[in-house]
Amino acid sequence: MELKAMILGHFLVISLALNAGLLYRDYCNNGKHKSVEFFSFKTECKNESLVTKRDTHVAGRFPFESSSSKVVDGVIDLDHGDPTMYERYWQQMGDKTTVVIPGWKFVSYFSDRRSLCWFLEPELASSIIRLHKLVGNAVTENRYIVVGTGSTQLFQAVLYALSPSNASEPIDVLCAAPFYSSYPLITEFLKSGLYKWGGDAHKFRQNKPYIELVTSPNNPDGLSRQAVVDQDQGMLIHDLAYYWPQYTPISYAADHNIMLFTVSKTTGHAGTRLGWALIKDEEIAKKMTEFIMLSTIGVSKESQLRAAKILQVVSDTHEYRTNQDFREGDSFFEHSYYLMAKRWKQLRNAVNQSKIFSLPHFPSAKCTFNGHTFATQPAFAWLKCEGEIYDCEKFLREHKIWTRSGKHFGDSTKYVRVSVLPRDEEFQQFTDRLRSII
Amino acid sequence: MELKAMILGHFLVISLALNAGLLYRDYCNNGKHKSVEFFSFKTECKNESLVTKRDTHVAGRFPFESSSSKVVDGVIDLDHGDPTMYERYWQQMGDKTTVVIPGWKFVSYFSDRRSLCWFLEPELASSIIRLHKLVGNAVTENRYIVVGTGSTQLFQAVLYALSPSNASEPIDVLCAAPFYSSYPLITEFLKSGLYKWGGDAHKFRQNKPYIELVTSPNNPDGLSRQAVVDQDQGMLIHDLAYYWPQYTPISYAADHNIMLFTVSKTTGHAGTRLGWALIKDEEIAKKMTEFIMLSTIGVSKESQLRAAKILQVVSDTHEYRTNQDFREGDSFFEHSYYLMAKRWKQLRNAVNQSKIFSLPHFPSAKCTFNGHTFATQPAFAWLKCEGEIYDCEKFLREHKIWTRSGKHFGDSTKYVRVSVLPRDEEFQQFTDRLRSII
Repeated sequence: MELKAMILGHFLVISLALNAGLLYRDYCNNGKHKSVEFFSFKTECKNESLVTKRDTHVAGRFPFESSSSKVVDGVIDLDHGDPTMYERYWQQMGDKTTVVIPGWKFVSYFSDRRSLCWFLEPELASSIIRLHKLVGNAVTENRYIVVGTGSTQLFQAVLYALSPSNASEPIDVLCAAPFYSSYPLITEFLKSGLYKWGGDAHKFRQNKPYIELVTSPNNPDGLSRQAVVDQDQGMLIHDLAYYWPQYTPISYAADHNIMLFTVSKTTGHAGTRLGWALIKDEEIAKKMTEFIMLSTIGVSKESQLRAAKILQVVSDTHEYRTNQDFREGDSFFEHSYYLMAKRWKQLRNAVNQSKIFSLPHFPSAKCTFNGHTFATQPAFAWLKCEGEIYDCEKFLREHKIWTRSGKHFGDSTKYVRVSVLPRDEEFQQFTDRLRSII
Repeated sequence: MELKAMILGHFLVISLALNAGLLYRDYCNNGKHKSVEFFSFKTECKNESLVTKRDTHVAGRFPFESSSSKVVDGVIDLDHGDPTMYERYWQQMGDKTTVVIPGWKFVSYFSDRRSLCWFLEPELASSIIRLHKLVGNAVTENRYIVVGTGSTQLFQAVLYALSPSNASEPIDVLCAAPFYSSYPLITEFLKSGLYKWGGDAHKFRQNKPYIELVTSPNNPDGLSRQAVVDQDQGMLIHDLAYYWPQYTPISYAADHNIMLFTVSKTTGHAGTRLGWALIKDEEIAKKMTEFIMLSTIGVSKESQLRAAKILQVVSDTHEYRTNQDFREGDSFFEHSYYLMAKRWKQLRNAVNQSKIFSLPHFPSAKCTFNGHTFATQPAFAWLKCEGEIYDCEKFLREHKIWTRSGKHFGDSTKYVRVSVLPRDEEFQQFTDRLRSII
């Protein structure tokens, strides 16, 4: 337990420090002033080296503390998965997804008092159902929809719902490595007595209840996944954030007990902080609703209304593409499928030229939604440094490319996770720079 | 500890069940059908008596489980503090507070990368500062602003920020009774190893670190408060949700280390789920930001934009009231001050007529903001049943008035908390019904 706590502490320190990078750069990067004033904020820039400090100090958990004022311009930050790639598409769509909210509407805590998830806006629920039916990626019949402040909150709501309230010790939360770097942090940060991070699911050997996370396609490596532990006492959470046809061929309508989705990765609206869960079991849906009531008394109505509008328009671009409102190229998933295909081609070309790096290969399959036969083109690239380079993140950082080391995902430092979803210009710069590394 | 857990469990069961009332009524109240379909939701209505079941069953923690299909129309539900009173004002203001959000804007996780609270929209920060400067209820100079998904999330962020991460046992979280019924629930629901509910601050006798909540004016009883423990090792959280001039005379600009506010109680926009904290200490502000990053990766941009607009218009109605855009009666805090004054007059009249009930009395003071000399007119009435009525909630429920029993606030069942913020019609029905109880 002591060791586990240490490892987790380490995770927390490093990963949050890494999360910091982007923030820091703009904050302290000109190196001229030691304090910045912004509204009433006053914060000191520190001179310590980012790389040295972030792995050793608890203070390094906060973005600004762990950063360096020595970082200069020209940094390409692909540490985060900020999906700004989609911005241009939505700009091209003009006012079709503009939401207008009068000041007197949606003032109540309640959205629909008759609904199990009483803070869920009915029009969001219908837009979610419509979209899943269109894409065919998940079963919505006889499911409860629980809305959350991003799928991050829903993940915690599920942990709360699945954890036995009267157990003598917290239940293990597992995920096969490489796993999303935030899972251990989120599971551990409040030192809950209900659940604890149990690490790599491949290494779980105990015969007791557990919760296994199945992320498919997986963050960070893009592979399609199934549960690995397969014991009677296991409960599964399927994180299907990336199970959309711009990233991977849709091969079946997912029919799991607990499925999580988020607009961040579906349409790129990360700032909206909006996720949804499709839940088979009524009691689990109720307890998740209870969690969100206790945690934030529901979910922003404004976010729900905007997400509803955006998801409806996404469906419209496919279902009404023969109308005068939309052109053929406007279909959201077609547009973003081709954009992702282009980026992966560009990335693989750069990687093949450099000889230093390698990327995973994915099997091809026919997508039941768009009819294309293609290999997964994930939102993140799981890049490996070959040969004598053992710390790939450090190596890339020397070339001013910020990525997230494989160690945060429970894997080797020879790997890094790289976002494939930045704006066009940044992605172009990234592949150009990769190509220049010989 | 065993006893404490039991007491807390009891709180959770009862209070959440009570929270349920409103939801239930619409859901199962016609008694004709046993199952209701809503989108893809299917939920059974149960026949058990609400009053019997909710105090005894864990299942009663969820709204629908604890409710009865026997409840008939005519129920006045004032259990919640849903601030729908304000709806009419905002309706009268027309499109002045309408927000328009284009689909391609605010897609990123980041609002301002240079800011300590990197997910805080700059225009929300400026509208908060402007409003506090106008009203004079809190010092904003040399403060960090941390935005949250309601002050509920900020409360948890503060607990996380103040709890020593290396302590051998969780720190006690205290509040003088009667205290807001959600405090113990929120503090306990994840069984955190960082903090635990320590109960009534008046009864705290230990010489060790603690966190004391000071809610002023207090929920439920409306009294102005100061810390009661006053030991060196104490850390204070000031919940100032109700420190606005429609509720209480503003007597000074609050200058505490940690101050929490929320738009729910300021302007009535509960559905927006938006709160803010004014924080003196940089490290605390950083750790709160870290909590919100881990908990929900920031706060809905849409909520922030709408809140910014609404707070700006509130300031405008006062600062530009001589403009042609606004009339004298449009000033938000004047309008709502008179509305609250009218409601309290109406409520006191009804209470005085009945002889069964009593209400607290508050000292009068001159408000530095609006110049009126008045006694606090709180968002909740802390109603006492006099004489032989020992369970005031039960008594009122027999008259189809739903309130929240004093026991959930760490006080006697002779008290109930009643919302003074429903829509006009409901408040009128409430006082009429009170008057009819002889």
